[in-house]
Amino acid sequence: MKKREEGGEEEVSLQTLSKKMDDFAKARDWEKYHSPRNLLLAMVGEVGELSEIFQWKGEVARGCPGWKEEEKVHLGEELSDVLLYLVRLSDACGVDLGKAALRKIELNAIKYPVPKKTDDHCVGDGEHSSSKIKFNEEH
Amino acid sequence: MKKREEGGEEEVSLQTLSKKMDDFAKARDWEKYHSPRNLLLAMVGEVGELSEIFQWKGEVARGCPGWKEEEKVHLGEELSDVLLYLVRLSDACGVDLGKAALRKIELNAIKYPVPKKTDDHCVGDGEHSSSKIKFNEEH
Amino acid sequence: MKKREEGGEEEVSLQTLSKKMDDFAKARDWEKYHSPRNLLLAMVGEVGELSEIFQWKGEVARGCPGWKEEEKVHLGEELSDVLLYLVRLSDACGVDLGKAALRKIELNAIKYPVPKKTDDHCVGDGEHSSSKIKFNEEH
Amino acid sequence: MKKREEGGEEEVSLQTLSKKMDDFAKARDWEKYHSPRNLLLAMVGEVGELSEIFQWKGEVARGCPGWKEEEKVHLGEELSDVLLYLVRLSDACGVDLGKAALRKIELNAIKYPVPKKTDDHCVGDGEHSSSKIKFNEEH
Repeated sequence: MKKREEGGEEEVSLQTLSKKMDDFAKARDWEKYHSPRNLLLAMVGEVGELSEIFQWKGEVARGCPGWKEEEKVHLGEELSDVLLYLVRLSDACGVDLGKAALRKIELNAIKYPVPKKTDDHCVGDGEHSSSKIKFNEEH
Repeated sequence: MKKREEGGEEEVSLQTLSKKMDDFAKARDWEKYHSPRNLLLAMVGEVGELSEIFQWKGEVARGCPGWKEEEKVHLGEELSDVLLYLVRLSDACGVDLGKAALRKIELNAIKYPVPKKTDDHCVGDGEHSSSKIKFNEEH
Repeated sequence: MKKREEGGEEEVSLQTLSKKMDDFAKARDWEKYHSPRNLLLAMVGEVGELSEIFQWKGEVARGCPGWKEEEKVHLGEELSDVLLYLVRLSDACGVDLGKAALRKIELNAIKYPVPKKTDDHCVGDGEHSSSKIKFNEEH
Repeated sequence: MKKREEGGEEEVSLQTLSKKMDDFAKARDWEKYHSPRNLLLAMVGEVGELSEIFQWKGEVARGCPGWKEEEKVHLGEELSDVLLYLVRLSDACGVDLGKAALRKIELNAIKYPVPKKTDDHCVGDGEHSSSKIKFNEEH
């Protein structure tokens, strides 16, 4: 289900993860537990564990410089836990997550058009700029 | 970056989403805002919006039967928002999310081995069974 | 800081909790860690632990009937953890939480006026009623 | 239900908030919506809104210096929304939140004893110190 890029890492698709999670649950007879709200709360639990990694650190620079290898591994596990429940939740809701995500990026591109070059000199990071930096404000 | 399965939907890889998000942020000069903790809090914000969809519904059955089409579309958008910030957060932390997720599924399979068929008749859904149904309990 | 109601439990004020948390942090020299975003992420961590208690249970009736005593105790601890960080976060932000909460209840009462008795017979729990049941929708 | 401190603000007790929320829900016939998991998800929604206030700000100093008055008011509203749902959730679960919180502070004091003065000079903020700074680590 994956393809190899030139000299690169294997790509991992949402469909692959979805299929693996489905097989995993079926093999353990866990499907009966995987209602949408159960999975949502499980995901919130994992978001909490992810937040705990960052809670006492103050600001963290991009790339998490200075983190110990075991911390990075732990971080990867918590990010994964959120992802896996999110994928599973989408399936439980009958939502094609990959398709929805591609569509959402397109909607965001319409909502937040790329500023014209000629305007660059007069666009500051003033007090209203925060309204422009969300990928995906709703409503 | 995607391949087509026989007669099916396009697969959407985490790498594709990551690349699209990166291009999106670069084109708008938003990279400066995308520190790990900023992105984490933005993701928590989206988890909140996702939760709001489910908050007054009581239990929701698999597949969300009876939901209006616009509700399903909105649900897909909120699921996507969580995913897109999660992908972006992983990148900001230098974590290969797809690789980490595949590894986590393998760890889960070791932690929660498939029960033997011969045990099936004596394994109930008793009061302790809830300890067995997590994909990914940590520590 | 508390008073006793007639024959009842002691009242516990937000100011009492705030003072206790402040003394607690000062005695351990932890104030330096208690920046607003650190405390917010710590609170999200506790919301995650609270969610884990409910995650595999399906719908839970009011009063949590059938829960074991130890589960109820654990639940009280997690609810408290969220509260204590919330109180601490409010202090770190210079917000008087008790005052703000009373004001918010008044705002909600204006936003969601009590329906007139005479209208009762024609107000159903139809598809739009979910918009009326929030205490505190924003914006 | 409140008393006045010498020359100070009124104290606001959790019991007062609980009673006001209960009256509010009863007057609007909303009790039927206030099951534990509905209220929990509503609280997660509010935690999301609170996080949105902080999401693009980078590190925020204690007291939120430089924030506009309207931002501070909005912050107070979101902190309140989390509190009000937390109080309501506790009631829906049959938990006395004030009592539980006082007990939790006592448990934390046992778990994290105040360091002896004589040790002060050799206690650093080294790599293990983060394990000491939680109010309320579980398990």
